[in-house]
Amino acid sequence: MSGFIGIDLGGTQLRVAVADARGTVKSVIRVDTEARRGPDYVIDHIVETIDRALAKSKLGRRGVAAIGIGLPGPLNGATGMVYSPANLPGWHNVPLSKILTRRTGIRTFLEHDASLAAFGEWRRGAGKGRRHMAYVTVSTGIGAGFILQGQLYRGAGGIAGELGHIVIQPGGPLCTCGNRGCLEALASGTAIARMAREAVAGRTRTTLRGLKGPNRPNARDVNQAAKRGDAVARRVLDQAGAALGVGLGTLVNLLNPELILLGGSVMKAGSLIRTPMRASLLASSWEATRRGLRIVPPALGQDVGLIGAVEWARYNV
Amino acid sequence: MSGFIGIDLGGTQLRVAVADARGTVKSVIRVDTEARRGPDYVIDHIVETIDRALAKSKLGRRGVAAIGIGLPGPLNGATGMVYSPANLPGWHNVPLSKILTRRTGIRTFLEHDASLAAFGEWRRGAGKGRRHMAYVTVSTGIGAGFILQGQLYRGAGGIAGELGHIVIQPGGPLCTCGNRGCLEALASGTAIARMAREAVAGRTRTTLRGLKGPNRPNARDVNQAAKRGDAVARRVLDQAGAALGVGLGTLVNLLNPELILLGGSVMKAGSLIRTPMRASLLASSWEATRRGLRIVPPALGQDVGLIGAVEWARYNV
Repeated sequence: MSGFIGIDLGGTQLRVAVADARGTVKSVIRVDTEARRGPDYVIDHIVETIDRALAKSKLGRRGVAAIGIGLPGPLNGATGMVYSPANLPGWHNVPLSKILTRRTGIRTFLEHDASLAAFGEWRRGAGKGRRHMAYVTVSTGIGAGFILQGQLYRGAGGIAGELGHIVIQPGGPLCTCGNRGCLEALASGTAIARMAREAVAGRTRTTLRGLKGPNRPNARDVNQAAKRGDAVARRVLDQAGAALGVGLGTLVNLLNPELILLGGSVMKAGSLIRTPMRASLLASSWEATRRGLRIVPPALGQDVGLIGAVEWARYNV
Repeated sequence: MSGFIGIDLGGTQLRVAVADARGTVKSVIRVDTEARRGPDYVIDHIVETIDRALAKSKLGRRGVAAIGIGLPGPLNGATGMVYSPANLPGWHNVPLSKILTRRTGIRTFLEHDASLAAFGEWRRGAGKGRRHMAYVTVSTGIGAGFILQGQLYRGAGGIAGELGHIVIQPGGPLCTCGNRGCLEALASGTAIARMAREAVAGRTRTTLRGLKGPNRPNARDVNQAAKRGDAVARRVLDQAGAALGVGLGTLVNLLNPELILLGGSVMKAGSLIRTPMRASLLASSWEATRRGLRIVPPALGQDVGLIGAVEWARYNV
């Protein structure tokens, strides 16, 4: 019997899953990525973790039909090339698929983490049977993956779905990508924390002031303060929600999906972010393009990327 | 030998083409749509014009394998239903495909005019052989059609591609769709004329003031004045170009196409609109998503919609 390996390589955590032929995950190993040590170290670390995961599952490399691996873009899944992800320092044009295939002897298929999350939800989660859907995650950054016409959509260079970097406020706040007014600079957890710190630096009364520890208030502090009724925290979430609604409105106007799976830590604010988001979505999309649209949470939880990676491996062999 | 009919139904002009089995257009009839008379009149008018076009080509209805018809959305090509296009007054949920099929005895396939223009360019024009491309026309309004993964992309409700109605300036100028800050309200010919009239109403020195005739200055006046060096006209085109660049940047970030065919009367301003557009496109998209992207004019000229409609008929039988 042949199995599959799914890998989710994040800037913080490296996760490796071993699954059976049907894609059922049998074991998962989670370790620190130690991304700061650079690509050579991280690649060695991936190979070792694969071997540990196989040993744990009592499976040899020969028992594995394929590896699927998701990581943050920019990358090109078709060529297996990783360009230079912001949270993987030192990576520049690394042919990761080829390297892992050579090092493990197992065919490796690489994709954006958000695309694999979309793929996983589509094959085994809340998107089953849909022809046109988007998966959107709003967390430290904002990522998206699209299933269009019943296929994972990757674009000409394998790099479609950069929802976090569409500009919705020209000249607005600087984004990590170097442009201004990107959705990610207005609605991500990072943006929420920045807006909260700006408010704290001002003179407004808010419970967000004086929190102990580095990098506070953070997005979670804002959620908690907003739930307690803090007006400043609520205004920050209002603004983030309004920006997110414009981003989703753009997605809807261009792609007319039947389903958007919307998750990520920022969405834990619940109605405090969803209410302004919905109002803004209505004000930034056409009624006809919204007809029949459903926006619901993803179903697969924190391991969605791993499940997507396993499914991607299964799909490609 | 069987032929095909292609129809381009605009708010101003109705065009009917007869083509041979290979899709070569043999004759075209162009008449006023007389859209103000409402759907019943216009549909009679279409049927009569089809018969005139067939007589001209010495072809009977039985010699026609299919009709393709393009018109402005919103509509659903999959069901053949026309909702309520802004420039076809009185049309509300008209099942146009069914009506024309019944009235002519010829199977009729309906699509957005911009989608059929994309399809026409893809099959016979500047987009041949591409897998991921967008056709964008900037004229009175802004329309777009997408070829994704080597197919016409229509979305879940047949209504994808509403590039003109993505919001790029929340709270900006009112659009015909009822929302504010849509691309169409900032970069279309209508928007250019509005900005020019606002400038004329002010105190700035400009050659745009005092032009004779209704609804002037119009977009063409702005182009001409800008070419003569009028600073106000140039600023208007700068603003429109900057907005257009944000819209294209969004398209590029989300869909990562290899090709954008960019046409329409507004683009006749040439470098006066292209230069600010390109600067803004660079500032509103990711380098990786632009890699390999080409932006060129469409190849098929004013009859692109007719050729697309003929090709759509051929494709569907």
